[in-house]
This record gives sequence, structure tokens and C-alpha cells, in this order.
Amino acid sequence: MKSVSEVLPNMSYGGDYNPEQWSEDVWYEDARLMKQAGVNLVSVGIFSWAMLEREEGVFDFEWLDKILDILYDHGVNVCLATATASTPAWMAKKYPNSLAVDKHLVPYSIGSRQHYSPNSKDYIRHIRIIVRKLAERYKDHPGLKMWHINNEYACHVSECYSEESTVAFRDWLQKRYETIDELNDRWGTSFWSQRYNNWEEIELPRNPATFVNPGQKLDYKRFMDDAIFHLYKTEKAIVNEVTPDVPVFTNFMIDFKPLDYFKWAKELDVVTWDSYPDPRDGVPYTHAMWHDLMRSLKQGQPFFLMEQVTGQVNWRDINLLKKPNVMRLWSYSTVARGGDGIMFFQWRQSRAGAEKFHGAMIPHSGEESRIYQEVKQLGNELKKLDSVIGTRVPAKVGIVFDWENWWAIELEGKPNNNLDYLQQVQSYYKELYTRNISVEFVQAGDDLSKFEVVIAPMLYMVKPGDRENLESFVSRGGTLLVSYFSGIVDENDRIHLGGYASPLKKLLGISIEEFSPYAEGEKSYILQNSEKIECSVWTDIIHLEKAKALATFGKEWYKGMPAVTQNQFGQGKAIYVGTQPEPGYIGKLLETVTAEKGIKPLIAQTPPNVEVLERNSKEAKHVFILNHNENDIVVDMPTDKKYINLLTNEEVQASVQVKAVDVAILKAL
Amino acid sequence: MKSVSEVLPNMSYGGDYNPEQWSEDVWYEDARLMKQAGVNLVSVGIFSWAMLEREEGVFDFEWLDKILDILYDHGVNVCLATATASTPAWMAKKYPNSLAVDKHLVPYSIGSRQHYSPNSKDYIRHIRIIVRKLAERYKDHPGLKMWHINNEYACHVSECYSEESTVAFRDWLQKRYETIDELNDRWGTSFWSQRYNNWEEIELPRNPATFVNPGQKLDYKRFMDDAIFHLYKTEKAIVNEVTPDVPVFTNFMIDFKPLDYFKWAKELDVVTWDSYPDPRDGVPYTHAMWHDLMRSLKQGQPFFLMEQVTGQVNWRDINLLKKPNVMRLWSYSTVARGGDGIMFFQWRQSRAGAEKFHGAMIPHSGEESRIYQEVKQLGNELKKLDSVIGTRVPAKVGIVFDWENWWAIELEGKPNNNLDYLQQVQSYYKELYTRNISVEFVQAGDDLSKFEVVIAPMLYMVKPGDRENLESFVSRGGTLLVSYFSGIVDENDRIHLGGYASPLKKLLGISIEEFSPYAEGEKSYILQNSEKIECSVWTDIIHLEKAKALATFGKEWYKGMPAVTQNQFGQGKAIYVGTQPEPGYIGKLLETVTAEKGIKPLIAQTPPNVEVLERNSKEAKHVFILNHNENDIVVDMPTDKKYINLLTNEEVQASVQVKAVDVAILKAL
Amino acid sequence: MKSVSEVLPNMSYGGDYNPEQWSEDVWYEDARLMKQAGVNLVSVGIFSWAMLEREEGVFDFEWLDKILDILYDHGVNVCLATATASTPAWMAKKYPNSLAVDKHLVPYSIGSRQHYSPNSKDYIRHIRIIVRKLAERYKDHPGLKMWHINNEYACHVSECYSEESTVAFRDWLQKRYETIDELNDRWGTSFWSQRYNNWEEIELPRNPATFVNPGQKLDYKRFMDDAIFHLYKTEKAIVNEVTPDVPVFTNFMIDFKPLDYFKWAKELDVVTWDSYPDPRDGVPYTHAMWHDLMRSLKQGQPFFLMEQVTGQVNWRDINLLKKPNVMRLWSYSTVARGGDGIMFFQWRQSRAGAEKFHGAMIPHSGEESRIYQEVKQLGNELKKLDSVIGTRVPAKVGIVFDWENWWAIELEGKPNNNLDYLQQVQSYYKELYTRNISVEFVQAGDDLSKFEVVIAPMLYMVKPGDRENLESFVSRGGTLLVSYFSGIVDENDRIHLGGYASPLKKLLGISIEEFSPYAEGEKSYILQNSEKIECSVWTDIIHLEKAKALATFGKEWYKGMPAVTQNQFGQGKAIYVGTQPEPGYIGKLLETVTAEKGIKPLIAQTPPNVEVLERNSKEAKHVFILNHNENDIVVDMPTDKKYINLLTNEEVQASVQVKAVDVAILKAL
Repeated sequence: MKSVSEVLPNMSYGGDYNPEQWSEDVWYEDARLMKQAGVNLVSVGIFSWAMLEREEGVFDFEWLDKILDILYDHGVNVCLATATASTPAWMAKKYPNSLAVDKHLVPYSIGSRQHYSPNSKDYIRHIRIIVRKLAERYKDHPGLKMWHINNEYACHVSECYSEESTVAFRDWLQKRYETIDELNDRWGTSFWSQRYNNWEEIELPRNPATFVNPGQKLDYKRFMDDAIFHLYKTEKAIVNEVTPDVPVFTNFMIDFKPLDYFKWAKELDVVTWDSYPDPRDGVPYTHAMWHDLMRSLKQGQPFFLMEQVTGQVNWRDINLLKKPNVMRLWSYSTVARGGDGIMFFQWRQSRAGAEKFHGAMIPHSGEESRIYQEVKQLGNELKKLDSVIGTRVPAKVGIVFDWENWWAIELEGKPNNNLDYLQQVQSYYKELYTRNISVEFVQAGDDLSKFEVVIAPMLYMVKPGDRENLESFVSRGGTLLVSYFSGIVDENDRIHLGGYASPLKKLLGISIEEFSPYAEGEKSYILQNSEKIECSVWTDIIHLEKAKALATFGKEWYKGMPAVTQNQFGQGKAIYVGTQPEPGYIGKLLETVTAEKGIKPLIAQTPPNVEVLERNSKEAKHVFILNHNENDIVVDMPTDKKYINLLTNEEVQASVQVKAVDVAILKAL
Repeated sequence: MKSVSEVLPNMSYGGDYNPEQWSEDVWYEDARLMKQAGVNLVSVGIFSWAMLEREEGVFDFEWLDKILDILYDHGVNVCLATATASTPAWMAKKYPNSLAVDKHLVPYSIGSRQHYSPNSKDYIRHIRIIVRKLAERYKDHPGLKMWHINNEYACHVSECYSEESTVAFRDWLQKRYETIDELNDRWGTSFWSQRYNNWEEIELPRNPATFVNPGQKLDYKRFMDDAIFHLYKTEKAIVNEVTPDVPVFTNFMIDFKPLDYFKWAKELDVVTWDSYPDPRDGVPYTHAMWHDLMRSLKQGQPFFLMEQVTGQVNWRDINLLKKPNVMRLWSYSTVARGGDGIMFFQWRQSRAGAEKFHGAMIPHSGEESRIYQEVKQLGNELKKLDSVIGTRVPAKVGIVFDWENWWAIELEGKPNNNLDYLQQVQSYYKELYTRNISVEFVQAGDDLSKFEVVIAPMLYMVKPGDRENLESFVSRGGTLLVSYFSGIVDENDRIHLGGYASPLKKLLGISIEEFSPYAEGEKSYILQNSEKIECSVWTDIIHLEKAKALATFGKEWYKGMPAVTQNQFGQGKAIYVGTQPEPGYIGKLLETVTAEKGIKPLIAQTPPNVEVLERNSKEAKHVFILNHNENDIVVDMPTDKKYINLLTNEEVQASVQVKAVDVAILKAL
Repeated sequence: MKSVSEVLPNMSYGGDYNPEQWSEDVWYEDARLMKQAGVNLVSVGIFSWAMLEREEGVFDFEWLDKILDILYDHGVNVCLATATASTPAWMAKKYPNSLAVDKHLVPYSIGSRQHYSPNSKDYIRHIRIIVRKLAERYKDHPGLKMWHINNEYACHVSECYSEESTVAFRDWLQKRYETIDELNDRWGTSFWSQRYNNWEEIELPRNPATFVNPGQKLDYKRFMDDAIFHLYKTEKAIVNEVTPDVPVFTNFMIDFKPLDYFKWAKELDVVTWDSYPDPRDGVPYTHAMWHDLMRSLKQGQPFFLMEQVTGQVNWRDINLLKKPNVMRLWSYSTVARGGDGIMFFQWRQSRAGAEKFHGAMIPHSGEESRIYQEVKQLGNELKKLDSVIGTRVPAKVGIVFDWENWWAIELEGKPNNNLDYLQQVQSYYKELYTRNISVEFVQAGDDLSKFEVVIAPMLYMVKPGDRENLESFVSRGGTLLVSYFSGIVDENDRIHLGGYASPLKKLLGISIEEFSPYAEGEKSYILQNSEKIECSVWTDIIHLEKAKALATFGKEWYKGMPAVTQNQFGQGKAIYVGTQPEPGYIGKLLETVTAEKGIKPLIAQTPPNVEVLERNSKEAKHVFILNHNENDIVVDMPTDKKYINLLTNEEVQASVQVKAVDVAILKAL
């Protein structure tokens, strides 16, 4: 199969296109405006099942034939959607078991979207039919460039408590554990009289009187993720069979907990995702992190931004409008972090329905609008970036990110139940982000050889092999930084006996006796070289074994005990941070450990809110300088190099000016 | 049929009377105390179904016969209730389908009230029987003056998700749209794969996975309103048939969204409502607005206050007590705004049940109490107000109020989902209220010829005919003021294409390109004649066509663009307010536009918290001066007139003193 | 039967022991560590039903035999649990009716605990079997010292809405009221058309459309309490039959509303409870109050602390750690207030399950941990306190506490729905607590002869006999203090007619006309001897009959009316407090009334946060001085006495030093 950058060798530009909402005369108008705006790719048919299969077994593809032809005639290719993201009304009526069921045992109602049960045999039987029909019909259409499977899997329904889901859960458990005794052991069912005699006794963690067995809850999350993944793989197998050369993907979402995207990405030909920063949050560093994560899911391979909005969304409480030029700047920030496609939801703003106030490339105010003018400008600029396609973002710092760890940390019954895994990861990521040090995300058991520094924030769950992998990374010279509440449980959320963090004990050179969380909002401090540093959230009671203390707690009964420690291990070193220090401290700590490894930003000094990123290949080296400020800036470039600014075609040397809310994309000469 | 003021030619005074809670000896005591307090009308039997029809088909009217006779003997007439407001336990047991069903598909349980389903055939069959029985039994009783149908319709149950409700919804839709294709078009079901093949596929918007189709939700609101209205009309038809000369009503509530009272009022012989201001809110201007709205529902015909409390209610979190004389003053405020009857819930405070801490005319502390003494004083004073009966409140300013618009605005998925229609209307009403400029409420499609000025706050939904009606009003010389987020959708919540506010574009002389809501609590400002005026909530990006800008935005990227505009249209003018300015600005704007039309308060200068209102007929002109302050005031009267103070019998000229928390009711001589 | 202090003549020390979570080698290690730590009693088998009855009728006691033998061999006795606190999975599968059902009619799911319905016949049949099996098997085991029935009854499930519960409720009502007419009268069903023709029509107060009948709701609380009490009595009857000499108990909880512990205590041989103060709250006076209440449930008989935590719990939002020595100090505070046993949840911290982060005597960090060292220290110290066993805490002040009153006050529909009965009681208790004046709790109808002063905070419900009992107490010379909103309703929550507080009118010498609650956070003031005292929450409008005013309201329209009154009645006096005064005022009022009766603390002057308590018998008098401060203190002792400090063996005279976070336990010589 060809790679995605071979199939789509130019920067892709477009959006979701839902022509079924409009009459045929609008289709020609759409095609004209797309061409004018530089659109070369659209996703078609995402919510068109009810139009394609009007009744069970009664298909109508003629309108779609026509759409694809009109688009192709105007130079617009398609990601063809499999249309399975929302089931038609006839299915709910005829097959009520196709509906997902909530915790109160109430089925979801139609009139919205994504109400199907991932475990419904009726649903699965029907997706097999419609997907094959689509694949067979369009396998030879020249405009078909990629398959867009379903849409935002699990966005609204990531849990289902139907009878079919119960049966499927039992089967899944039996496959995983083989014997009921093994399950009893893994879940610790001797606690609270929960022992099972056989698989049939097991129920979903649905309506418990109080805290649920955490092993059961964790496995339910795994099970639902697998069930939904099975839907994806089912569709993928069909389109692969019929159109073996067409790349396949589904679109991911930000901060999305229910699906283990590292697992999923293995089955995607290209990672794509939907990014909707809230304009009131300022520079969207959490989205930058997710761009980096998306790029990391396939070890650095470029991704597509599958959805963003031009103006404002409709699903927040108050939906602020992006100011002029912000959409363009954020689009380039996406490209800078590995995006090879910039797409929108949606092409033309709807007249009716739940999303009619969601912005679009053609807004309600039409062709003359500010919005469409910005869309057109960007689309025509992107044509200048062909050399960027397929290039990589270099990164020597790895950050461990693990979905199962996330699930386990945020189960109830913890010493501090406000712990937030994403926030913990972000508190380390952000300090590197503001310093323009690129990172890649990775799992603790993955190959770490490309990194000099690895950060493992709150690695609560240490799975088989993780210990050995991390020890090997450090012993060969790497620097590892681990934060508090790490090394606590195994893959079934059972305590690693032998004292807290026992799997990391040798590596970290410490033992941890107990935890003392701070009350909400409570502040304390640690001391390093007589400097007071604010800390909060958590205290570990740490005893040094072989490590030395970098900082100690400044008050309370554990005053003077280690707070931050460092241990020499083989050729490398392992740092442990036993509390939540203020951001500046984390920043300096990361500066020190990266500098020791020779890792530093391309441009030493930049004003705040300026991103500097590289995308390189053997053939081409690019520097992106993104100015999020409302004033112009001048940035000093390495004096020994010359660049061409791809957007302005000007030559750059020594320094470059970047206007307010603007970008410079420099290609090394 | 006689008008209500012919049937009840004196000021009505009394309350809900529930003698079934008391033994017979108390009934005679009640009658004695009523007579002493000037009570001449009570509502009987509102919750007596279980006492009247003790088992299915087993009736007992003897106790009620006796009550009506005792009352009549003491000069007390009755609004006879139809007793259908709460169903007996035997009905729930025998006909479980009579119970309404909540969103979780769980039926309501008995032991409370109003648990019936408005779509239950069993319920409807039984109300037909009990209402006819009551009508036949009491049709000739001389004390029967009005029919009190049910009670506070939809107060607790305005939604029902039973199977019968589903079927009824489908029938209602079929009657409205005739073909399923028409429904698909109106609801925009091509969005999110929601297309229906037939009516049977349609479900209630019950338990959606995410946002529901707004057309479906809007029609569900219409449907439930109609279903409940059908209950009212069913009862009304029976009592009209048996007692064609007896006026009929049901009692309305404040700020009540589920029922379109403009529609309902057409079927009421007199509008009545229940008013319970919270004493902690100070002078109850929101209730004043609702008094005005109630009077407007039948184009100015006087209404009845059907319920208020003497001391304190029981259903708020903390139920503050009205201070001495406040109940009396608020009662007169009601009369001043068009009330021809002052009634209470309830006559005698209950010993048991959920409302035993709700105040009454005879409180737990009995005849000697402060409360009963105030009740007695007011009842005997009201006898002096016969000339007020049937008179009208003059008003030259109309405010558009529309229930369907309210429903549509507050559906989810808006640019700003904190928009509150009532607050928006109140923000204009209050400025007129504090200036003692009387208003009448009206719908955008109604006859506007009696008004000089019409205000249409947030007229989001513009229905067929509205545009023409408003244009005609302005072109003939009227002044129209429209606020932001108006003219956006049609009656099915579909965008009016052609740019925002397109139906009002010509009239307003502007085009609106986009919206930029402010974040929660965010403030900005507009400029008018170099004066800075605070604004918040919303910004329209406005382009002037023929209008001129009265004020412009003061900052952000749309600085200098129009914020408030004015357009000459025919003989009149149309003003548009594209943000939420501070109250003082709205007040001055309204002062200007009313003054231009010669509209001004009767008394030019009054202290704060003083209401001045007129009630006039050909025969009699009255001025009410209500002093809500805790100090006495003196008010200058028009020097060319003489009045008699109806309560004190003193002659008034040039000026009048009104004591703290007191009223002057002046009749022109 | 022997008394508990005869069965267990030493201070008991230990905790819940759940060996089924561990392999056999750990059992021996446990026994060794228990012995070393002075553990002499453990509760075994609380959640072991699934291990004991592995399938229906298939029993396995061998592991338990072994455990009991190992323990006994190491000097550790057992409270043997009846294992019924959580049902096995096979029961839910085979008998789905055994599951409790929530308000949405959804059964609870297994995988947690306590999911059984208290009204399930299947559950009851099975507890009879397992309890008899256990009793028969272990009746002769020498280590069996007490029966631990179930565990924390109703902790999670105190309501059940199953069909079986509905039927049981009807039966319960029929037993209570005999005729349906009586029930109609008691519940006041003539209100809102709620009249019942027969018992079958009655439903549970499950999913009401609005406020429920309060009589129904109150009786539902009584019914569920009785249903759960019936479970306890069922088990007790069986163990009593098989082992008539073994004391029986279940463990209670703090601030626990669903169960009337005064009623329950009559069937317990010893009161035991579980105390988990939140370390962030400082000195746990609310737990001190509950210790006193637990001791009062059996009129002063010592109780057992059945559960506390060594370090931190896991079920709060953030679970703070007890600082060093705090666990020890709080344990002694428990002993000082009547504790004859100090137990923990649990012995060994779990590896898996929902409570694995709940602290234990052997924490995850094992034998060397600070926690276990503190456990060992305390266990070995307690051996010195044999003389304390069975001694009493002297108290001359009684505080009325009544569960039915609590239930009734906190039903909805009150003048002020933020009234909190516990807070009201605490506001009086706390002032005595800080003054080291011991109290005992009592019900209004109980024998009051041992008290000089009785405080009845918010005695809203006055039941038959209460009036006479209180009048008799005062007339014989006692001082009674009653606070606002007292004397309002009868045992069915029906108003006592004849003016508010009518049953207490004669005793208090006042009449109350109306209530005027303050808004949330609103403050006013009362005046006593020209001193301004802040008040809030509530105002009674009081008229003096025979009483005199101690304080009057300082503002509002009731300025100058009585706020606090005092009435001479027979030999005693009755004080009424008609508002919520600031704490200092309550404190001084209580100081005055207790001093008048010669009640004063043993030590006149103590620093803040120091508890001084006595535990005496004819043979032995002890003084406990507990220093919660972080600094050492010196306390002056009565000069005429000599003591021996039981922990240090030092003689004490005139004064004693108590270190920071330490205790002195002095036995009079």
C-alpha cells in the first residue's frame, strides 16, 4: 500500500462536506467556491446512512455518485466516510437492541446521534452491509483517496449496559483470564464477598450501592475500548479487502480518555484528530500537546487535523469567536507540529439541526464574509508548502503517556481523588513547550532508545516489563524523571507489595513509606539550596536508600525529609519528585536535565507566546516561527544559515520579523 | 354569556377553600370569619376528587352540597373547581397508564399531586365523568359564579414520556405536517442521519446521547402545551354545555415557560394567576411585569389574582415573612395593574400535609393573629372600590412577548447558551416600570395599531407574517426597537438564509455578518457622543445599509463598528441594539423614543419605589399611588384636577401624602 | 448472661481482620505481629459470606476454623461476624429479588457491597441459614467472645423501592394503624386528593411529581428503620438461641440519620461504633459528641470503638493523614468518654479492592513503619487501664436527642429548609464541651431524674407523654432550655393546633404567633442588658404569658419583642431561645444555668483544646487530661487529692504537666 504522503503529496485542505443537507443547485456553487478556496479534499457522507440505506436493504447511491463526480471535476478528492456514525431511525424501530443502554437501564433515544450499542450484533451486522456496499460502489472512483471510518468513536457513548454488553463482557473476561479463579485473583474478589463461581455471575459495574471493585471497573474500561475498537477493525477489514490501496483512518479527539489511542493507532494508516481550542484560553498549549501526542502515536509520522472551526463552535456554554487571523495562525501551528492536512467541520454552515450555529468555511453570511475570505487565503497559501509533506519533528525528550494508567489513576478511592493525570502530564509538558523544546510521547514499555531524557509523570501503574525497560534506559545513560504516586499498582490495580513504588525502588534509590496529601488549595514549601519553593497536592514520606536529596520539605512533621531525589543508576540517573512543586521549579529542573544532555531550543531567546518548531527530512529542513502576540516581533536566527520564507518568498538571514498573529515558515537554503 | 364584571360586579375577595381537611364544626366558624373579613368569593374543591369520587363511579357530593349552602348563606359565592388537578389513589392502582412517565421511563408515584399523564386516555375519560357530574349537580346553585378548571396546569409535570404520549406525539405531528417528507424538511433530518420513513419511527426527545434535533424538541414543547390545553378545553366544553352562562378559567403562574398563555387566554373568560413574590427581592417588579402580561393576554381585560400568600410560603429554600402591611400594598399594586379580584391560597392553614407551613388567611395562630387582622382590614377596604371594576390601564408602549420564541431561544447549541429571554425582556420592561410608563404585551403578529412604540427584545424567531406586520407598524409612523439575536430562525428553528436577521434587514437598514459573544462576566463598552457605556453578553458585527449608527463599539477588532443603529422606514423608525448595554443607557434610549411620541408618566417626578398607575373607563378615572418605601412621601398631582381618595374619603388636590408602605387610590372628580 | 465487661475484663484492642484476602503464611505472620502489638480481640469474617457459602448450600468453614485456632493460640479473641453484610454473587444471580431497588426502579448491581434489599424474603431466608451454621460451628470455640452482626447497617442502602418493599410497607402500616381511616387521618390525605380506600393502593414515596405527603415520608423512614432492625433481630435471635452467653452487637456510625439508635441499643449488649474524624477539622468535637451519644444509648454503659483508622481513609475527596501521635490521643479521648475497646478498620491493609488505600494497623509499608510502631505502643499502653473497664462518666446535664424529630425536621416544606438538627444540637453541645461539662443524651420521654439541667434543642416533634414528662422534670426543680421551632408537630408531623408550641405553652409561659426566618447569611441582633448579641436563622414572634423576657429583638418590625424568655414553673424554670444567638451567648447562658445547679468542670481553668473527663466507679476514680495542642501544658489539679498517672506510673499532686498531643490518665489514690 502507498503511504498517505504518496497518496496525497500536497498539503490537504478542506472539511466535512454534507451536501445531503442542501439542494442540487447548491452543490455546483459549493464546488466553485471550493476550487476558489484551494480546497482539495473533503470528507463526505459521515452522517448519510439514512440517505444511503433508506430502509433496511433499500439503497440509494445516485446522489452520492453525482456529488463525487462534481467534486472530482472541480479537483476535489474525498475521504469517503463509512456512514456508520449514526444509525437510521428504521434500525432503532426494527432492532431496539441496536440502541445503547445507560446506567439506569434506559435505552438512548434517537433524534440525536451515536445512540448505537458497540456490542449490538444487529448494529454490527448492518455496518458490515453498508460498508461493503460503499466500498464496492466506489472502489474505482478516482476521487476516493482515503476511508473515513465512522466519526469520533465513543464521543458520547463510551459505556453501554445492555444485556448484550453484559454477555460480551463475560466473553471478553473469559478470553483474558481463562479461569474464573484467575479473575477472582486479579480482581481481589475476596474483598467484600465478591467472589465469582462462574462467568455468568459477573455483571457490569452499573448501579453499585457504593465503591465498585476497581479491577472490575478497569477491565470494563478495557472491554468497552476493545468493543469499540472491534467496530473500527470490522469496517477496516472490509474496505481493506475491497480497496487494498486506499488508506484508512478514523478521527480522534482531545483529552479523550475512553479510547487507548496508542493501541488504535497501530490500525490507522494515518492519525487524524479534531481540535477545538477555546479562544478564551489564549495560546492553546493543551492542543499543542495533543498535536504532539497525535504525531507520537505513530512514532513521528505526520497526522491530519480532521476538524477545526473557522469562527466559533456551538457546544460550549458560551462560544467565543476566533479573532481575525487566529484560525490561520493555529492552522500553521498544527502544520508545525506535524500536520499534513488542515480540515474543518464543516464546509457549509447548516440551516437546521443541532449544529447550525457551528461555524463553517462558508458561514451563514456567505461568500463575502470575513470568514470565507480567511479560508480562501489559507487554502491558497498552503499550496506553497509541498516540501513540508512527510517531514518529521525532531525530539530528544520523551514523555510517558499511558491510557490504562490514566484510567486507573482516576478510579475512585485514592488518597487524593482530585488527582488529574492530564494536568500532571501538562504540568511537565508546558515547561518544555514554553522553552520550545520538542517532545514525543511514548509508553513506558516502548523502545526508548531515541530519547536522551524521559519524563514519567505519575506512572501509577507499572506493568510487566516496564521496570526492566526503564532500568535499561537509565543504565545505558538516559535521564529519567518520575513524579509522585508512581509505581503503585500492577495492571489489575493491585498494590505492588514491598513498600510503595517497589518496582522503581532500585532505580530511584529510595523507599516511600506513606503519602500525606494536602487539603484542597493548601500550600506548603520545599527547600533547595535554602530557596523556598511552593508545593501542594501531595507529600511522599521518602527514605533515601542510595539516592541523594535535591530538595527537602520545609515544614510539617516531615520537615527535612527528602522531597526531590536523584539517583545514579548505571550510566544514567533517575530523579524523583515527591510533591507538586510550583511550575518555575519544574521548568528549571527540566532545563537542567535537558541541558546536561545537550538538548536546547533552536533559537535561544524568544519572546513569550512564540513557538519555534522544526520539520525536517533528509531533503528539506524547515523552521516555523509562530507569533501569538498582538505585536510584531523580531527573532535572531542562527547566523550561519540562510532560509527562504515559503509564504513570502523572501530570503532570510540573521534575523526575521514576524508580524502580530502571524507566522514565518522558513526553509533552509 | 355575561362578562365576568357583570357576574361579579364588586371587587372579589377570598381564597382557596379546602373544607374537606376540617370537621363540620369548623365550617360554620369559617363562614362567620369570612363574612367578618369581607370575603365574597372562594375556590372550592380543587383537590377533592378523592372525596367526591371515593371509588371509581362511587360519588359523594353531600358534604359539598352542605359547604356551598353554608357559604351562600353567609354571602360567599364560589368558583367551583373541577377537582381534576390530582387523581385519586384508586385511579393510579386501577389504571397505571394514567400516570405520567419521566425521562428515565419511570412513572411518577402517588402521594404527591399532578402525577397524571396529559396524554392518558384513562385520565381523560375520568375527567369527563367527574366534571359532568359536578356541572350537573351544581348548575342551578345560586352561589356558583365561575368554574375553576383544574389548577396550575403543568406546574410540576409538563413533560411525559409514556407510550401513550409517544403515540399522541406522532398523531400531533401528522396533523401538523401531513406528510413525513414535510416533517423531514421542517426538522432538517438530513443532519446526523435522522431521516424518518414513517410516523411510527418517531420517538420523544427522551434520553439522547447528545444534542437533540431542535425542531423535534421545539415541536415536543408545542405538542405538550397542546396536550395540556386539550385537557382544559375538554373540561371547558362540558361546563359550557351544562352551564352556558358561567364564566370559566384556570389559574396561570409566573415566569411559566411550558404553556403559551397567549394561546390559552383565548379560551379563558377571565385570566387569573398566582403571584408569590419573594420578600427578600424588595419591590416585586417582575411580578408587576407579569400582572401587565396577564392583563395583556386578553388585550387589557382585567384579570384576577387567584392566589397569593398572607405571610410566607413553604416551598422556597428559606421562606421569608411579609412584613406588616406589605400584603395589603402588594394587593393594591395588583388592582392598580388591572386586578378585579384578590384571592389567597388558602383560607385556613392546613394542619397536615406538604403545605401546612404555607400561610393562610386564618393562620395556625387563629383569629387574633396579626395576619387575620390584616386580612379583615383589606377585605373591608376593597368594598370601596366598586368603580374600579372593569376599568382599563391605558398603555401606548407595546412589548413583544412570545412563548414559542422563548422555547426556541433557550434550546441548547446557541452561540451563547446563557441567554435568558425573560431577563432580556425584563431589562427593557424595568426601565419603563421605574419611569411609571405603562406597557402592554403583545405578539409580533398581533394588531399593533394601539401602540406608538413597540419593543421587541430578542425576537429570535420571526414567523410568517411577522415581518410584514412590523414593517407596516413602522411605515405608518411607529417606533420599533429590536435587540440582538433577532430575526434568526423561522417557526421550525431553521435559519432564515440570506445573512442574519434577514427578515428584518430592510426594516432595520443593516446587515449582520457574525456574532461574538462575551465570556461570562466579561465587560466591554460602546461609545455614543464620546460617552463610554458598559456593554456585555453579546456583540453583533453590523454593517450599515441605510441605517445610521447611534453608538459604536469601543474596543476589540470591531472597534468603531455600529453597536446601536437607527433607520428611517416609511413614517416611522426602527432602532437596533446589537449588544447588552448597561441599564441606564436602555432607560435613556426608551425615555427618548417615548418622549418623541408624547408618552410620559402621569406624575413627572416621583421618589424611587413609587408606582403611579391609572385605571380608567368612560365613567371613572382612577390614579393609584403606591409607596413601597419605609418613609412617607408627598406627591405633586396635576394642578388642574380634583380627586377623592376612595379609601379615606378625603378630597385631594395639587398634592397627596402617602404614608410608608401605603397607597392612595384617587378617583377623579 | 454475663456483661461485656465480665466477658472482656481488659481494655480490648484490635481491629477487623480479613485473612481471606491473604495466603496462609501471612496468617502466622499476622498472629505474631498482633501479639507483639498487644492485640487481644479481632472481628473476623465480616465480608466472608462468599468464602463460607461458596454456592447455595455448599459451605466451607475449614479456613475459618484454622484462623480462629491460630488467633486463639496467640492470645487473640474474636468478635465473630455473621458475614451477612454483603451477599455473594450467586445470590444475586439466582435470586434477583434479593437486590435492593433504587428510586428509578433500577436494582443495584453487584461488585460493590450491601446491595441486598432489607425486605427481600430471599435474603432473610439465607441469612437465617448462614448465621445458624456459624453459630452451631463455633458455639464452643473458646476464642468466641462476641457476635458482630452484619456491618454498618444501612450505610449505603437505607431505602429500597422494590415490589417486596412496597408490600412490606403496606403490612407495616396496617400493623401500625389497623384501619385505613386511621391512616388517612394520620397522614392528612384529605390534602391534595390523597385519600386511600385500602392498603393496596398505597405506594412508596418514590418518584413524586412534587412534595410528598410528609406523614407518608416519615412513616417510610420509620418502616425502613424497622425493616433493617428486623434483620438485626433475626440474626440476634439465632445466635442467642445457640450461644445464650455470648454478647451481641452491630456497629453504628456517626451523624447517621436512617437508624434510630436509641431504639436499636435496647437490643445490643454493647454499643459499638465507627469513628473517622477528618484530620483537617482539628479537634474532633463532633466525634466527642457522638462518643457521648453512644455512651448514652445504654444510659451510660461503656461502648466500644469498633473502627477507626491509623493513618488515612480512602473515601473522602482528599484523605489527609493523621499526624504522629494523633491516633493515640484520639483513642484516649474515646476511652475518656466511655470507650472500653479500641478497634481499627483494619488489621492489614488490602492489596486489592476498593479500600486498598484505607489505612490499617499493618500498612503497605509493613512492620517497620511509623504506623505499626504507634499501633504497638498504644496496644501495650492500654494494658495498664484495667481499672477503667466498666467505669462511668458522670453527667448532670442532659441533652434531648431524638431520631424521629430529626427525620421530621429535615422533611421538605419548612419555613426554613436549611435547618439542620445536628448543627442545632451541636451549637449547644459545643459550648458545654469546650467548658468540660459532661453531658448525657436522652429522649424527651425518658427518665430525666438524674439530670439537673436538660437542653432540648429544636424539639419540633412533641410526642404523647413528652409534655407531661418535661413539665414533671421542671416542676420538681429542674432547669429546661428549649430552642426555637419546638413543640410544633405530633408524631405524624401534624401541627399541634392552638398556636405554635402549644404543648409547651404552659411550661414556657409564652405563646408564639408566627415565625420569620432570616435569609441565608442574614444577621440581626438581640439585646440583653443593653448588650447587642448577634442572631440569625430564625425569629419567633413571641408573646409573654407568664414568662419574662431575658433578651429582646433589636431591630425589624418586631423590635422590642421577646427573643429569650424564662418562666418559673413549679420548683424549676423553663428557658426558651427564639432565635439562633451567637455561640458566646449560648455559652454564657449555659454557664449560668449549670452554675445555678452547682454543675462545674473538675478543673476550673484549662487552656483551649484541652479535654478533662472523669470515669468513675465505686472502686476507682479516674481523670483524663487530653492535650490537643502542639505545645506542652500544665494543669492545676484539685489540691486536696493525689493521683497516680497510669501510663507513667508517676504520682501526681497539685498540678500535672501534659506534653503536646499527649494525655495524662490519673487514678485517684
